[in-house]
Amino acid sequence: MKLYGYWRSSCSWRVRTALYLKGLVFESVPVHLVKDGGAQNSAAYLRINPTGTVPLLEVIIDGETRWLAQSMAIISYLEAIQPLPALFPPDAFLAAKARELAEIVNSGIQPFQNLSVLQYVKARHQDDKAWAQHWIARGLGALEKAATKTAGKYTVGDTVTVADLYLVPQLYNARRFQLDLTPYPTLLRAEAACAALDAFAASHPDVQPDAEK
Amino acid sequence: MKLYGYWRSSCSWRVRTALYLKGLVFESVPVHLVKDGGAQNSAAYLRINPTGTVPLLEVIIDGETRWLAQSMAIISYLEAIQPLPALFPPDAFLAAKARELAEIVNSGIQPFQNLSVLQYVKARHQDDKAWAQHWIARGLGALEKAATKTAGKYTVGDTVTVADLYLVPQLYNARRFQLDLTPYPTLLRAEAACAALDAFAASHPDVQPDAEK
Repeated sequence: MKLYGYWRSSCSWRVRTALYLKGLVFESVPVHLVKDGGAQNSAAYLRINPTGTVPLLEVIIDGETRWLAQSMAIISYLEAIQPLPALFPPDAFLAAKARELAEIVNSGIQPFQNLSVLQYVKARHQDDKAWAQHWIARGLGALEKAATKTAGKYTVGDTVTVADLYLVPQLYNARRFQLDLTPYPTLLRAEAACAALDAFAASHPDVQPDAEK
Repeated sequence: MKLYGYWRSSCSWRVRTALYLKGLVFESVPVHLVKDGGAQNSAAYLRINPTGTVPLLEVIIDGETRWLAQSMAIISYLEAIQPLPALFPPDAFLAAKARELAEIVNSGIQPFQNLSVLQYVKARHQDDKAWAQHWIARGLGALEKAATKTAGKYTVGDTVTVADLYLVPQLYNARRFQLDLTPYPTLLRAEAACAALDAFAASHPDVQPDAEK
């Protein structure tokens, strides 16, 4: 398997963590999102991912090369082909809860600090930092409330779930935008528990081969 | 089961369609998102859904009332408790593909025309219509490209999948913002096929009890 990603892309990071947790061997293919107008916009990349986004999973199925985009789709696929360790709790309602918390990040927070969105805001002479802070704070507030009802050692219960894969990169992004994180003690506790795990250490952007100072 | 929603909320609409397709009986509870500052912000609603969003599914499990937010989490839960008709294809890769297309809408298009986002844009004296058009056009372009590789009668193959549940409300939103839809023939064809189905007719916002002229 190949994972096309970018060291600091929070969506790529989620998938990396899932791959490491499941012990799946993969080759990391860096796609530089900024340099020269962004490699994700190159003709070569758009041929395999017409949506021009990272992450992108490349897999060979029955001898044929296939590509899959969107972090949640990729992680659900990895869960299907390698069920253990499970990223969705066995109980159907709890599995849906873990997905709910992941989606609060995936559709409710991260889209507003996506590189292309911030570039669009900036091009219109607006304050992209204030924009990002507003939506991160709003989303983390919702996530903190949800997590107080579900959290054990991690965001949902005492086992790592898909919700943690989405939480950790989002908090890293929040710090990049200098957001005060003290209103989110439950989330910070889950993040600290994740930080102790090898898969989260190995997937951290700062240790990726394409990381920059 | 109770579904808290709003007739014109595209996220509520996705879940309604899933419920009708699966023949699940549910009670619709309207939450007016605009009147009096929005019922989703009332103390009573925030008690059951601290994130202040619709849709929200209320279910009784082992005698206890439980609540689930986020359309993708709700639809995945419905798929788990009522597997047929399946909204995710049986093949693992194709299931992930259907999820990919749904997520292009869920995290890549819809968040930028969310009511709270448009209100935020407007409050800063910006053009909320141009903002919405920009992100819808960008996202539908990605979705059209992805769909040309997966579409049969519907967005992914010849059976309705989760991708269609996300597509139809998004095209309705695009028309509200007066976007030219001719660049998306594959999506329009899938939408027309969906329109012929009872579940899509029953879930359409204009026939909901809380619909307004």
